[in-house]
Amino acid sequence: MANEIDRRQFIATTAAALSVAKSPLQTSAPVASSKPKVVLFQGDSITDCGRNRTAAEANSASALGTGYPLLVTSGVLAARPTEGLEFYNRGISGNKVPDLQQRWTTDTLDLKPDVLSILIGVNDFWHKLDHGYTGTVRDYEDQYTALLQQTRQAIPNLQLIVLEPFVLRTGAVDARWFPEFDERRAAAARVAAGARAAFIPLQTVFNEKARVAPPQYWAADGVHPTAAGHAVIAEQWRRAAHL
Amino acid sequence: MANEIDRRQFIATTAAALSVAKSPLQTSAPVASSKPKVVLFQGDSITDCGRNRTAAEANSASALGTGYPLLVTSGVLAARPTEGLEFYNRGISGNKVPDLQQRWTTDTLDLKPDVLSILIGVNDFWHKLDHGYTGTVRDYEDQYTALLQQTRQAIPNLQLIVLEPFVLRTGAVDARWFPEFDERRAAAARVAAGARAAFIPLQTVFNEKARVAPPQYWAADGVHPTAAGHAVIAEQWRRAAHL
Repeated sequence: MANEIDRRQFIATTAAALSVAKSPLQTSAPVASSKPKVVLFQGDSITDCGRNRTAAEANSASALGTGYPLLVTSGVLAARPTEGLEFYNRGISGNKVPDLQQRWTTDTLDLKPDVLSILIGVNDFWHKLDHGYTGTVRDYEDQYTALLQQTRQAIPNLQLIVLEPFVLRTGAVDARWFPEFDERRAAAARVAAGARAAFIPLQTVFNEKARVAPPQYWAADGVHPTAAGHAVIAEQWRRAAHL
Repeated sequence: MANEIDRRQFIATTAAALSVAKSPLQTSAPVASSKPKVVLFQGDSITDCGRNRTAAEANSASALGTGYPLLVTSGVLAARPTEGLEFYNRGISGNKVPDLQQRWTTDTLDLKPDVLSILIGVNDFWHKLDHGYTGTVRDYEDQYTALLQQTRQAIPNLQLIVLEPFVLRTGAVDARWFPEFDERRAAAARVAAGARAAFIPLQTVFNEKARVAPPQYWAADGVHPTAAGHAVIAEQWRRAAHL
């Protein structure tokens, strides 16, 4: 009797594990899922991208903005039409980690994401130059670490994706940004590792791209990606998320 | 001497032909082009997709809207960073062929496109049901034919892409649409053939998709594509355009 229950539990657990496991090669072979999978994009203006903030429903193009969240959503929903996936964008222009912290319950935890993607950090430095912000690299790392710890506690099985903050040397980005911005990138990598998050090394990716076309081709002001830049992020994102 | 000139001309002509020829597999191997290539998307709301009409510049994400023109642009610009491609969206919600005709000089010919993509026809029928429009299938075919003839005369080397108007049987699309809508699709195919345009058979494509997920997954009201539907169009478009 006890063995029978063990056997049933083993089968149920194994089936659940198999339904979650994904091969990177499986993007065009959708498998029916037992429940909708919620994917949430969080961040600043690079994520926001002019989204309609009054449209709260999942998968709405206008609610996703014109950046990588829309590109990812459109492509994944087309490739996986039977999985009931739900994509949300809650990026807000100008945000730093402390701003995410303030709206985290409403804009993240309440949505109960299965996959949470975060791109944050440019303003945590930029606003020191022109908004009187005084946060240090250490502040950024501590705040970001605390935010992800809180999130892991609330949603233990969460798939976390941390996108490296990146800049290109053009437009608004000049010598004043360095070396501190590089230290913040390193901090983001440590935060991701500590939270067992997938880390997308966007600075390396865009440094490579900037050898093919000028920095402003990928990010007009050095910070905000162009349409081409967003496509690069979307491709990296789908690879990292196996979606 | 004459032979030498012939040989040079042959080499130049062959080189030009080779630089234009594109393999469908070549999307990630950009070749430097001698001049910027202008790609223009024309149509109705399915193309418009909430684009910012005050932003006139090429390749601007907000000026491209949240539909297939943005998805195509982002993907192609990322894959072909050295070609100086310029993408414009001039779709306007509610347009029929006569509306395109009225704004054709300003919104199409003046932009001197190298590639012109047109998706038009749903409102030419739909507005008969609820806007008192009285155009026949013959009107649609004649007007559309004249528009493309005028365009070919103005820009002889234009690469033309005609997207088949399509609907899915859900939302606003009921029995009243048939058989006339099917006759209009057939007319669009004839117009495309007459203009030596590539024709993208979107109705067939979406009929196939609707066997995998419900019609409203691809077009919520039967007419306007979802994010998933736009990704399907974008993929078909890139294949047809070899971009």
